[in-house]
Amino acid sequence: MDRYDTISFLSDYGSTDEFVGVVKSVIRQLAPAVMVIDISHEIPPHDVRAGGLTLARSAQYLAPGVVLAVVDPGVGTERRAVAVEVGDGSSVLVGPDNGVLAPAVGMVGGATRAVELTNDEYQLVAPGPTFAGRDVFAPAAAHLCAGVPITKLGPEIDPVLMRPGVLPITRQEHGALVAEVLWTDRYGNLQLNVDPDEVKDFGDRIRLRFGERSRVAVRARTYAEVRTGEVGLIVDSYGLLSIAVDRQSAAEELRLDAGGEVVLEPIADDDDGEPARSTPVALGQRLSR
Amino acid sequence: MDRYDTISFLSDYGSTDEFVGVVKSVIRQLAPAVMVIDISHEIPPHDVRAGGLTLARSAQYLAPGVVLAVVDPGVGTERRAVAVEVGDGSSVLVGPDNGVLAPAVGMVGGATRAVELTNDEYQLVAPGPTFAGRDVFAPAAAHLCAGVPITKLGPEIDPVLMRPGVLPITRQEHGALVAEVLWTDRYGNLQLNVDPDEVKDFGDRIRLRFGERSRVAVRARTYAEVRTGEVGLIVDSYGLLSIAVDRQSAAEELRLDAGGEVVLEPIADDDDGEPARSTPVALGQRLSR
Amino acid sequence: MDRYDTISFLSDYGSTDEFVGVVKSVIRQLAPAVMVIDISHEIPPHDVRAGGLTLARSAQYLAPGVVLAVVDPGVGTERRAVAVEVGDGSSVLVGPDNGVLAPAVGMVGGATRAVELTNDEYQLVAPGPTFAGRDVFAPAAAHLCAGVPITKLGPEIDPVLMRPGVLPITRQEHGALVAEVLWTDRYGNLQLNVDPDEVKDFGDRIRLRFGERSRVAVRARTYAEVRTGEVGLIVDSYGLLSIAVDRQSAAEELRLDAGGEVVLEPIADDDDGEPARSTPVALGQRLSR
Repeated sequence: MDRYDTISFLSDYGSTDEFVGVVKSVIRQLAPAVMVIDISHEIPPHDVRAGGLTLARSAQYLAPGVVLAVVDPGVGTERRAVAVEVGDGSSVLVGPDNGVLAPAVGMVGGATRAVELTNDEYQLVAPGPTFAGRDVFAPAAAHLCAGVPITKLGPEIDPVLMRPGVLPITRQEHGALVAEVLWTDRYGNLQLNVDPDEVKDFGDRIRLRFGERSRVAVRARTYAEVRTGEVGLIVDSYGLLSIAVDRQSAAEELRLDAGGEVVLEPIADDDDGEPARSTPVALGQRLSR
Repeated sequence: MDRYDTISFLSDYGSTDEFVGVVKSVIRQLAPAVMVIDISHEIPPHDVRAGGLTLARSAQYLAPGVVLAVVDPGVGTERRAVAVEVGDGSSVLVGPDNGVLAPAVGMVGGATRAVELTNDEYQLVAPGPTFAGRDVFAPAAAHLCAGVPITKLGPEIDPVLMRPGVLPITRQEHGALVAEVLWTDRYGNLQLNVDPDEVKDFGDRIRLRFGERSRVAVRARTYAEVRTGEVGLIVDSYGLLSIAVDRQSAAEELRLDAGGEVVLEPIADDDDGEPARSTPVALGQRLSR
Repeated sequence: MDRYDTISFLSDYGSTDEFVGVVKSVIRQLAPAVMVIDISHEIPPHDVRAGGLTLARSAQYLAPGVVLAVVDPGVGTERRAVAVEVGDGSSVLVGPDNGVLAPAVGMVGGATRAVELTNDEYQLVAPGPTFAGRDVFAPAAAHLCAGVPITKLGPEIDPVLMRPGVLPITRQEHGALVAEVLWTDRYGNLQLNVDPDEVKDFGDRIRLRFGERSRVAVRARTYAEVRTGEVGLIVDSYGLLSIAVDRQSAAEELRLDAGGEVVLEPIADDDDGEPARSTPVALGQRLSR
């Protein structure tokens, strides 16, 4: 009987090379009855922030068990490989200590224990130190499933000293809210780091500024409610505010992407929401009849 | 013992975001022993027709059980979420009632019963209505597997009133057959909506017209039989006529794609198959010696 | 009790069409308890060499069982469909006899038996001969798992007469080593067909020449050890020499890809590693003061 029966697996390995298949083959041999569920392997190469955010969005829906998260630009260097227990052992997150695990760990209540993966009895012997997913992390995940106690994998470390994830927070500025795009999804919707409560007094129409440009957005409940030509603001399926355009990509329409800054401003009642325009004049206009 | 042990899963979710993984994680927790088989998640975003055709092509090969098909541009609006029983309960298709299920349902003999998924006891509580795959469809699929009777998921609806899929049909015109490209596959082969019987009297060489352009195609049994420079007509693995070019993309070569019109014409015996060409003349030609 | 419980599956089917899902659905119905592990389905269309190399890299990590490898530009022609037993039956490789299996078969000690898949009792009846993955190879793999003896699938053939894989080998030339890029991975690292022993006397800095261009590479143990602007030479996770650039794509930086030639040259101690430069002279230089 396995201690855990599911491994939820996220990486930046892509699907073209055999990396994901090899990791699963290693797990299959060490813990044959375990089911591996792919969260995503298309995290942009080395993008620890994107990996961490994807894991955090998924966290509350994942099956209890082991989470294996490998976005690891520092593989083979002094960055630590870790296993982080949460919920007093209800689940364990395995990966590099570079911030990729931190947002998810925070999301589920914080670490109750953590170890550094240094015990090579539970690792594969490898020609080089560059494929830790295969040689270090997959064996750790599989052995945890098979019942190896976490403390066998290496010495305990203080969870407080693990590398935090950097989650951008909003700030108030002259009555406006300065926010950031966390994620552009497949449909081009732009998730902001904004809790709907932060703009609950902003009215139904909100001005969005990005750099020199500006658009008025209307609140909507569903993507399809946003009318053609309009920009919508929706509470998305994770409970955060998202910018959407019906059946088009808001990211393309607004030329915005993850990391981009968006300023949200309430619109005064007597304001039509359009940027103030000066009436165009022409040289000599006053003189013509 | 589960009522069904396999969920065949198709969507337009892509593989970059965590959508597919989250849906599988929900299923894993509600029906742990069920195997999920991915049909495709790379249906172009919101392309209900492409999703319906992909499902129809797959239908006769899928394992009996539950089919979960989510291409859902109207998510959260008044479009219905449904479960459609076929074969007197041998399988159930779950998805939006927007035409994506219809071609497959037709392919396997029609619906024997259908319900609208309104019973929120079998749904997840969600922050917003925009991720029905996770909150409505995956739970329905999993609960059906676990043995929940379909009639518990919501009120029965008349299958006849469900949204049909729109499948283009060929038409005869002056002895020619006007057809349409249903699908461009990975190799660039162009599947037509043409049963080989429809062109059985057209001879071995058939003229293809697309817009202003025209090519002569030769019948072949396999892709490799089509010689370099030739255009081949093949009965593909689904029993439909396909346009192919050996080890190249017919789609690129002929600048055609799904939805494009192709006119097939028999070629008279005394015709070399090449478009009739007038002999080029030059100004003053008759006068020169 | 299945004879084999795992099928490791590689193809050039891609993930957009339903090919992979249909193959798995066929397996699910013929051998329900078997787990299918995807190695990769993004082998470039018809690229037998890339498929063979990917399989060979994976081979020693795969779970014992059946390996299903379908990169099959000659599908439906006289190329043979085969099942190749290795390790006296510990595993079986199934696919076309076109070289895609050969490098992996060699890697695990050679074939102990092989058959041609001609017995249509163990195949699906199909509308055409173009989808052998579904109609011939998947059923063979599944039936082997379910306990059908390999000799039931067709007549034995001489493994020695199977199509070999073509693996490029290095050659010495005037003290330099002429090598080839085997593989560009997702991160842009360039794996060479070079065993580290072949360059063990080349010192810590090695000149790389590709066509007219040249760069000096430094040895490193990990990707992160390669400093910005440097080119690194690393023993990769398969034990071969790889060219890497930290957090960038060496393939893009050096404009090299799989199949490209790289000449490695030792650098003399009194050489600064930069290409020898003659001191520039100008017409009349000796005459000026």
